[in-house]
Amino acid sequence: MNYKKYVRQYFMPPVKCMKWAEKEYVEKAPIWCSVDLRDGNQALVIPMSLEQKIEFFKLLVKIGFKEIEVGFPAASETEYEFLRALIEQNLIPEDVTIQVLTQAREHIIRKTFEAVKGAPRAIIHVYNSTSLSQREQVFRKSKEEIRKIAVDGAALLKKLADETDGNFLFEYSPESFTGTEPEYALEVCNAVLDVWKPTPDQKAIINLPVTVEHSMPHVYASQVEYMCDNLNYRENVIVSLHPHNDRGCGVADSELGLLAGADRIEGTLFGNGERTGNVDIITLAMNMYAQGVDPELDFSDMPGICEKYEKFTGMNVDPRSPYSGSLVFAAFSGSHQDAIAKGMHWIEEKDPDHWTVPYLPIDPRDVGRSYDANVIRINSQSGKGGVGYILETKYGLNLPPKMREAMGYAAKAVSDHTHKELHPDEIFELFKETFENVKKPLDIQKVHFQQNGHITTQVTSSFEGRVITTEADGNGRLDAVSNALKKAYDMQYTLVSYTEHALEMSTSSKAIAYVGIQKPDGSLSWGAGVDSDIIRASIDALVTAINNR
Amino acid sequence: MNYKKYVRQYFMPPVKCMKWAEKEYVEKAPIWCSVDLRDGNQALVIPMSLEQKIEFFKLLVKIGFKEIEVGFPAASETEYEFLRALIEQNLIPEDVTIQVLTQAREHIIRKTFEAVKGAPRAIIHVYNSTSLSQREQVFRKSKEEIRKIAVDGAALLKKLADETDGNFLFEYSPESFTGTEPEYALEVCNAVLDVWKPTPDQKAIINLPVTVEHSMPHVYASQVEYMCDNLNYRENVIVSLHPHNDRGCGVADSELGLLAGADRIEGTLFGNGERTGNVDIITLAMNMYAQGVDPELDFSDMPGICEKYEKFTGMNVDPRSPYSGSLVFAAFSGSHQDAIAKGMHWIEEKDPDHWTVPYLPIDPRDVGRSYDANVIRINSQSGKGGVGYILETKYGLNLPPKMREAMGYAAKAVSDHTHKELHPDEIFELFKETFENVKKPLDIQKVHFQQNGHITTQVTSSFEGRVITTEADGNGRLDAVSNALKKAYDMQYTLVSYTEHALEMSTSSKAIAYVGIQKPDGSLSWGAGVDSDIIRASIDALVTAINNR
Repeated sequence: MNYKKYVRQYFMPPVKCMKWAEKEYVEKAPIWCSVDLRDGNQALVIPMSLEQKIEFFKLLVKIGFKEIEVGFPAASETEYEFLRALIEQNLIPEDVTIQVLTQAREHIIRKTFEAVKGAPRAIIHVYNSTSLSQREQVFRKSKEEIRKIAVDGAALLKKLADETDGNFLFEYSPESFTGTEPEYALEVCNAVLDVWKPTPDQKAIINLPVTVEHSMPHVYASQVEYMCDNLNYRENVIVSLHPHNDRGCGVADSELGLLAGADRIEGTLFGNGERTGNVDIITLAMNMYAQGVDPELDFSDMPGICEKYEKFTGMNVDPRSPYSGSLVFAAFSGSHQDAIAKGMHWIEEKDPDHWTVPYLPIDPRDVGRSYDANVIRINSQSGKGGVGYILETKYGLNLPPKMREAMGYAAKAVSDHTHKELHPDEIFELFKETFENVKKPLDIQKVHFQQNGHITTQVTSSFEGRVITTEADGNGRLDAVSNALKKAYDMQYTLVSYTEHALEMSTSSKAIAYVGIQKPDGSLSWGAGVDSDIIRASIDALVTAINNR
Repeated sequence: MNYKKYVRQYFMPPVKCMKWAEKEYVEKAPIWCSVDLRDGNQALVIPMSLEQKIEFFKLLVKIGFKEIEVGFPAASETEYEFLRALIEQNLIPEDVTIQVLTQAREHIIRKTFEAVKGAPRAIIHVYNSTSLSQREQVFRKSKEEIRKIAVDGAALLKKLADETDGNFLFEYSPESFTGTEPEYALEVCNAVLDVWKPTPDQKAIINLPVTVEHSMPHVYASQVEYMCDNLNYRENVIVSLHPHNDRGCGVADSELGLLAGADRIEGTLFGNGERTGNVDIITLAMNMYAQGVDPELDFSDMPGICEKYEKFTGMNVDPRSPYSGSLVFAAFSGSHQDAIAKGMHWIEEKDPDHWTVPYLPIDPRDVGRSYDANVIRINSQSGKGGVGYILETKYGLNLPPKMREAMGYAAKAVSDHTHKELHPDEIFELFKETFENVKKPLDIQKVHFQQNGHITTQVTSSFEGRVITTEADGNGRLDAVSNALKKAYDMQYTLVSYTEHALEMSTSSKAIAYVGIQKPDGSLSWGAGVDSDIIRASIDALVTAINNR
């Protein structure tokens, strides 16, 4: 691979711009602008239909977007009609502003103003490309000529807006900003601002797109800081970012850019958009949320949002997409499952102020995802923690720690052998098959107790069909039965663990008992018994433990 | 959504660590360590089988990885067997070192040394969790107790290595580093290093995992710089990073961390791994490549790598995954297509030293992707540039600029109407149907020319079946035919464009002519003719243009 054919295509600001690096995190949500219906839509193999766009628009409004770029109405008939439908069907809520994109070309700007007629309020977003490579290769124009395109476009926006009674905000993008010399981008933006002369009542938006990601994110942050430090009318300018993701750093560009002084983010849901996509606003918003900052967008119904997005766009939400993917809360690894289970217990025990469960950056329930199906998932990588957690939380079985280990190995072996994930009900079935009321080869037919200081029992049992009755004493009922069985079959083991609890989740009032016995080689064998009689449950557990030796 | 339930869970270094921010880009490839077969594998719904792991290992070797973590052999039978297969079947090339993971627990470390017996060389990677939340919730141990786990583990590694003649390198991870106080992480790492006492000949690896992403990437970079500045034996320590992607910043963490002094990256192909995944090494390596830095990994057969990855893991490569996804080089938008087409012409024209084509961060051919199917793709968002480019590069048709516009509208209308993408052959068919040799309602049966200073022609033509012969003069043959037709049917138009070129891509030696006529309302109409006789081609083009009025 000939790496020598490439060169860094970005330009550093002329002065050091690193004040942003002193800040730690984003303290306040920016103005969010969704470009799903424009940049997102134009990157789809099959762009959305009019009806799909209207549904998508409603979804964006519901999530809480106050600014929504709805298209490039001069560029395609569908986009024009969609815009007219929004306006004529009164689909734009009072607190939402639509945004339309136009190149800085006269006939396109004029058509855009026609298209937006009657909108309660609109952002007219005008752009031209300013990068060195586009100036040279695409436009073959000088810096002065390119600046003039921007200034003429800005002037026409102002003129056409003044001629109507529409309520317009202006936005200018030096497109391909990341391939533009920052001093030149500044010169063009300031020339545009000198035309618009923004005021506190009539601000202007300067948008600094990462049209193509050429640099590391801290370089972009320096560029943004340089612009913020040197833009005219800065107090009346909303600095906006529009990162793409070619180097996989769209989120970092946005976040560092906000630290560098930007006020606004243009992005899409799930990072849909040209090539590698626009920045994913879900990740940005939820990153703030996970640090205790109000994102001012509502993603509590993430499964519903995913479903609609997939239906409208024909794209799939990647299973590893932060906060939204199907696998992002999944823990297959035994040690992770164990830590999550302990973290959840910690919450119950301590009722702490803040969520700090290991391996779960946020509580999955906050985005409408349940624990059952999403968090603790069992395959051959899993261990006692996960299996124990599922049996406890979903089926109310509180296995003793060492028995969890045995159950963990049993599950791992099945998953390893069958080469598949085990679902909770399969885990539960495996538990019952392996550890509950196993009555072969040993079974007990009858038990009588007599109590006189200590316990005496008479046990009628069978082993592979051979029936025998034996008597024995014990310091408790289970101990006495155990002694009777040892005597009957000359067995060597020690009763080392006995616990029992009510089965809350059962409809009947049954109890479950867990019994562990230690074999002569020191290893353990386990059984559980379920019965409405707690004595019977414990005896069944013992019989199962013996049968599992 | 209750954002107040969250709090920032990371800790800043005790001193300001911002030297990294003075650097602009990563100048040299780090040591790459693939953890696909461990961290990647353990995050799969269905972990890989032994055979799949062996194939995946071979793929990683072919790409150029020199360090490959092959599993947690003490944790599962499959991982143990895979490791033994690699060793016993001599599958580890001389220049590749395998790495095995172990918790800092005695029986697990011992089993790991057994598992790795006979390996030509191995990195033993020992870890324990050091974060505040894991200390409190999972281990319920003090800082001193947690440090002791690390030190005891380190000592046992040293002891067991000394007892064998194996060739071992040691790696220690303070797991959940990003939730650990940097001073404490430093204390633990230095305690481990004091046990190992690394030398220039026997270095040690200190790995600083972003087990869960809790902070913005520049915070992580400061933490890494703090560690690099304060680790004992620094010159003999390889500082390694292992970023996960919970906040969508795994790539930024890695890149800024490298600027902060790290020497090594642990990651996976396509960012597979727990939850949101590990950092994607493809993106990291190709980011270097796109800036002219040798990544020391070979992704020239990206389609083949994608195919194998998908087969082995059961995961899909996201269409927008940088450098590898199916859509990352696609341009549907008219203006992007136009710029790409002009950028490609620029290359032909200027033969520049470096690749700077707009909207294409790298040449798709470098990763085994063709232009045809991947770059210029036509739907209702597309325009003249893309359609013209496809007709030119794939079918050798060099349409005049204004005719490209007409063809662009024709394609957009079909795509908008049928609501689907148009493939190159559909574009070509559409061109032929619309613009080539259209002989209804007007057709020409016979043409005779006479040359005497100017050209005189006799044209026998038919219009909706009615045959007529007319004569006319012209300053050229086409002009004469045009005049004869105008006379025959009393038509009003002006011949405004005529170009013709050989059809290089055709098997026969045909030519294509393009003719544009201006109608009385000022609009244009276009036609093309294809024939081995260039006169005939131009006449057919004219007839088509007339028929297209």
